[in-house]
Amino acid sequence: MVNFEDVEQAYHRIKQYVNHTPVMTSRTLNEIVEANVYLKCENFQRVGAFKPRGALNKILQLSNEEKSRGIVTHSSGNHAQAVALAGKLLGIKTVVVMPENAPQVKVDATKGYGAEVVRCDNNTESRVRTAEQLGEKHGYTLVHAYDDYNIIAGAGTAAYELIKEVGKLDYIFFPIGGGGLASGTIIASKGMIPDIEIIGVEPEKADDAFRSLRDNVIYPSPYPNTIADGLRTQLSEKTFGIIKKYNTKIITVTENEIVDAMKFLWERMKIVVEPSGAVPLAGILKLEENLRKKQVGGIISGGNVELNDFFKIFYDKISLT
Amino acid sequence: MVNFEDVEQAYHRIKQYVNHTPVMTSRTLNEIVEANVYLKCENFQRVGAFKPRGALNKILQLSNEEKSRGIVTHSSGNHAQAVALAGKLLGIKTVVVMPENAPQVKVDATKGYGAEVVRCDNNTESRVRTAEQLGEKHGYTLVHAYDDYNIIAGAGTAAYELIKEVGKLDYIFFPIGGGGLASGTIIASKGMIPDIEIIGVEPEKADDAFRSLRDNVIYPSPYPNTIADGLRTQLSEKTFGIIKKYNTKIITVTENEIVDAMKFLWERMKIVVEPSGAVPLAGILKLEENLRKKQVGGIISGGNVELNDFFKIFYDKISLT
Repeated sequence: MVNFEDVEQAYHRIKQYVNHTPVMTSRTLNEIVEANVYLKCENFQRVGAFKPRGALNKILQLSNEEKSRGIVTHSSGNHAQAVALAGKLLGIKTVVVMPENAPQVKVDATKGYGAEVVRCDNNTESRVRTAEQLGEKHGYTLVHAYDDYNIIAGAGTAAYELIKEVGKLDYIFFPIGGGGLASGTIIASKGMIPDIEIIGVEPEKADDAFRSLRDNVIYPSPYPNTIADGLRTQLSEKTFGIIKKYNTKIITVTENEIVDAMKFLWERMKIVVEPSGAVPLAGILKLEENLRKKQVGGIISGGNVELNDFFKIFYDKISLT
Repeated sequence: MVNFEDVEQAYHRIKQYVNHTPVMTSRTLNEIVEANVYLKCENFQRVGAFKPRGALNKILQLSNEEKSRGIVTHSSGNHAQAVALAGKLLGIKTVVVMPENAPQVKVDATKGYGAEVVRCDNNTESRVRTAEQLGEKHGYTLVHAYDDYNIIAGAGTAAYELIKEVGKLDYIFFPIGGGGLASGTIIASKGMIPDIEIIGVEPEKADDAFRSLRDNVIYPSPYPNTIADGLRTQLSEKTFGIIKKYNTKIITVTENEIVDAMKFLWERMKIVVEPSGAVPLAGILKLEENLRKKQVGGIISGGNVELNDFFKIFYDKISLT
């Protein structure tokens, strides 16, 4: 299991390696919600998402022998770069299994941190099998993206820093994908503020956690086509256990609500946030009537958005003049 | 004239009304430049740009009689909203003259702060004449966007806050349009660090300040078609005087260099910056070989970008799924 003390220890263990990201506020947002909203901006974290917190907390606790053998993970997203960064910072051999259809920019970024990238077929079974086989063959330790108490405790340090900085919160909103960030946020928040209301937010199109909690069974999340690509994964035994134990409330938001929240963050708050990272704000805006006069926290999980299509508009504009 | 003491007084005068904006850094940027680069992020300022600093410093110093009569300005850009905000905060009747072709979103935002918007023809003479006539008729005080020592001193408070926070700088980079931000930055920086190198950056396509300084005459800047729409204005007597007096170095950057710098800020630093605001970073990247091991400051002037075209890409994407 994992407790508040684990989050606190994770904070001290990783703090020299990660960014202490800013908490941002907006007068306009506070006027809309009629509350004080504090957004912990992990889009400003190294590699552009909260993921290095968990990866570093995990890898720093390996034995010297495990470190000398190396680590392996499978991911097509932010976790891949986080593990690669951690491996580089700690001087550990790192192998990342990525599907053939992973965007080249993510493959390049992962290699840029010095990791070895091994390609696999475009399905979860192939990813898992390839990583496990490499682990068995070479003695690499598998670093899972979320089904690991050390990853969860590390992820919880974002909420820990938020509450340390702003004090008592009445509510905290966070995205739910595989449940790693959710579980860590729950443990940190409840450890610091026992009566805080914890609200996980999930895309309606990938509402497996909502249904899992309702029916008390882990549902798979087979390729849901939500724009919030970081939230397409299903819960694990460990994350589901924590989410259940603390009576988490889960709400869902539509694709339009996600993009509207994202646009607010870019346009009014001037920060680049990825769709998954905007999901908690979509939840805050959805529940705004319940939040009047409250202290409300939100975890903005990341800001990695492919901007080439966007910037084509600018490059086209200057080529015409 | 305007001195460092005026900037210091402006800082204390306006600080309760403006945001103390963050100074942001980037490991990647520091590695590219091989220097420590500190960006003062006025895109996080109220109304999304540095402009309220000058407007508030000006308007707070009006006599009670002047305040009771009201203020007028002409602008199609960030200055319009800044004056409207200042008028609202201080309870002063505010009239903003905007050309017929001003974007509706800017007209609406200005009205949203409670200002009266008067439309005029799409040329500078019409703007100036309309504002002056309204001033004469109603006794409104004209709040110029930059040709005013109180506006200049207010604009200088951004650099003042930057240097207060990070200490000794070897260089400071800033954009040059009408020269208000440039002049204020120069006075603040030289007042705090006499041997600092001050470098104004201008689009090659609107290089009137560069040529003005070279030839010692103020050149007009008739509708240059740079993407940096905040920098299309020409210097005034007051701003030209300050820029000359302190031996400012002016460098120019291409349209491509501006968009590349902007893309870096969005993609790597996760902040939304408008083209004019990215111009100083384009200058830093252009001179990087001269900046090795130095302490380098930059003023990111604003972040107001029309995002509807961008977000159409996202809204289209979710409507397909």
